Amino acid sequence: MLPGPTNVPDRVMNAMLQPMVDHRGADFHVLYSEIEANLKYVFQTENDVFILTSSGTGGVECAVTNLINEGEKVVVPVFGEFSERLAEKIRRRGGVPIEIVLPWGTAPKASEIKEIVEKEQNVKAIFLVYNETSTGVTVRELPQVGKIAEENNLLLVVDAVSILGGDKLPVDEWKIDVCITGSQKCLACPPGLAMVSVSQKAWDKIEKIGKKPIYFDLLEMRKSASRSETPFTPALPLFYALNEALKLVKEEGLERRIERHRRCAKAFYEAINAMGMTAFPREEENRSNTVIAVNVPEKGDDRKVREIMREKYKVLIAGGIGKLKGRIFRIGCMGIISQAEVVMTINALGNALKEVGCHVNIEGGLEAAMKAFQ
Amino acid sequence: MLPGPTNVPDRVMNAMLQPMVDHRGADFHVLYSEIEANLKYVFQTENDVFILTSSGTGGVECAVTNLINEGEKVVVPVFGEFSERLAEKIRRRGGVPIEIVLPWGTAPKASEIKEIVEKEQNVKAIFLVYNETSTGVTVRELPQVGKIAEENNLLLVVDAVSILGGDKLPVDEWKIDVCITGSQKCLACPPGLAMVSVSQKAWDKIEKIGKKPIYFDLLEMRKSASRSETPFTPALPLFYALNEALKLVKEEGLERRIERHRRCAKAFYEAINAMGMTAFPREEENRSNTVIAVNVPEKGDDRKVREIMREKYKVLIAGGIGKLKGRIFRIGCMGIISQAEVVMTINALGNALKEVGCHVNIEGGLEAAMKAFQ
Repeated sequence: MLPGPTNVPDRVMNAMLQPMVDHRGADFHVLYSEIEANLKYVFQTENDVFILTSSGTGGVECAVTNLINEGEKVVVPVFGEFSERLAEKIRRRGGVPIEIVLPWGTAPKASEIKEIVEKEQNVKAIFLVYNETSTGVTVRELPQVGKIAEENNLLLVVDAVSILGGDKLPVDEWKIDVCITGSQKCLACPPGLAMVSVSQKAWDKIEKIGKKPIYFDLLEMRKSASRSETPFTPALPLFYALNEALKLVKEEGLERRIERHRRCAKAFYEAINAMGMTAFPREEENRSNTVIAVNVPEKGDDRKVREIMREKYKVLIAGGIGKLKGRIFRIGCMGIISQAEVVMTINALGNALKEVGCHVNIEGGLEAAMKAFQ
Repeated sequence: MLPGPTNVPDRVMNAMLQPMVDHRGADFHVLYSEIEANLKYVFQTENDVFILTSSGTGGVECAVTNLINEGEKVVVPVFGEFSERLAEKIRRRGGVPIEIVLPWGTAPKASEIKEIVEKEQNVKAIFLVYNETSTGVTVRELPQVGKIAEENNLLLVVDAVSILGGDKLPVDEWKIDVCITGSQKCLACPPGLAMVSVSQKAWDKIEKIGKKPIYFDLLEMRKSASRSETPFTPALPLFYALNEALKLVKEEGLERRIERHRRCAKAFYEAINAMGMTAFPREEENRSNTVIAVNVPEKGDDRKVREIMREKYKVLIAGGIGKLKGRIFRIGCMGIISQAEVVMTINALGNALKEVGCHVNIEGGLEAAMKAFQ
């Protein structure tokens, strides 16, 4: 129940056992084409899509190095660990991040972004973390941000690592030029791959970019993709796994999958309330459906609680990171999540909290969760 | 029989099926520490070692970005596709590659490197591809290059992607500051991981380096490694696989493993001679023990021959790349290579060549191969 790596279905795990093939040969070309087609389905895009042998962070770095020239201004809302890391990446690339710094647990508003875009001269792009894995916050005004980007002729780059496949994200409809996700989150595939979509507007910029390293060079990727290949040796077992994971998404249907995530998240939040606890995000509408962040109750030693959950109930959840260390629990509501996992997790969390002396209404929590599924 | 990805033993494949764990938790810390210890064994080093979720090219890029500042001169012998790519990476980093351009099929000599190091002012490092996967050439004078680097107080960076674990490479004894390898070559693990060793002399430089991207930042890796973690989400199944692959190397013993590669390579070269063909590398002493490059005989349409081998004999070998496209065959002599694979490959290659109308002495080739194993 981690906010990634998340549980992987057997069909996906077993897919990794296929033999090594020539990554310049016919078998790989078929595999690559299948993945490419199904990725376009989950990204809901006609844009180009690429598969990188790297973590999601590598995917985000790919977007940064391919789209930003030395000295260029980029608007970036900072409201958690991963958006902080994004701003840092932009700085390291030589770009100038125009940061909108917000309290952790809140989401940037489209109006705030609009204001700064209009005030600042010469902004080139908006870089936005759609789902802050560190705070359990989703930026619900992303569609409006897409409009702002379009109206101001800015590139919109979205870090969707912990959300794509688990919540609404129609890349083309929302005018997202570059969208990045990771394999080990809502797609329920093992970690090790990042996926990136690239619009024509983004290509126009990429073709004019200065010196950059080769490993994440999108122009190299585009060249190889025309032969259904990757520029460098791909992590074959993970490619097989991703192919299978995407087939599962297609079999279920993207809309049903998103609805399942939404329903499980609702069950989590209602159970947490019924138990007498609170979600970390301040506004209800910005609560994530894929990462459930819960305030650690008083006396609820975070490490101890998670240790009991792990040892006694075999349930892994995550703690806070960065400045939220020890202050929140983070539960993954991703991938294969269903009623069974929600109930099991609420039960384990409730009992572990009780064991360390917290007053929590376990029965009420379980009842509220069950009710959400009816 | 590709020069990577190479065949992976079942024990290593099956290791990938272990469940996802928290990459910030106790289970992962144990896994990381085991890999780290065994990597030091195969690298024969006391230096720090790191595991990157990327291809070998990513590992080489890591070395380039962490060790070269804008405008710094680096000596780099160019004698094949991968050393060309290395020079290109150095240029993209803003470094100045002082190229020693040699005919493909030859290896740089220590004396040539010494001469250019002494002639050029202010060289900072030597970057060397130890085994050119594109030409089947190994730089046998690497130990002398290590001495030159030491005497001139230069950093020595070695791309050992397609050789480490399959031929002699005592990193510390040969004074190699940064050594890079990939998972899918002589270690017989699936592709998707790169491994990098870093000496104290290299750290002294890394700490003084300018702006660089975060994904391959060795300082971040060192920080995380002190907690037995990676800075970003690791490709867990591949980490499990690498752990198992390294255990297999240890069980066999590194020296015995290297001797097995040497013997199989000898069998290949003698069989090829006996069949009436020639190896591509010009000098016998520079022939690689891990990548066997063979000139395509006249009338021996390279694509057709490989297709027959694949379809009829289920044996995959590679063709030439870059300017050697269509001119050579490349056979991987890596990882689990043994007498059975050598004989099977010689038989398949001989028969496929015969089928396209080449005169080859198949019987003589098989006999020569068998003899080499006696």
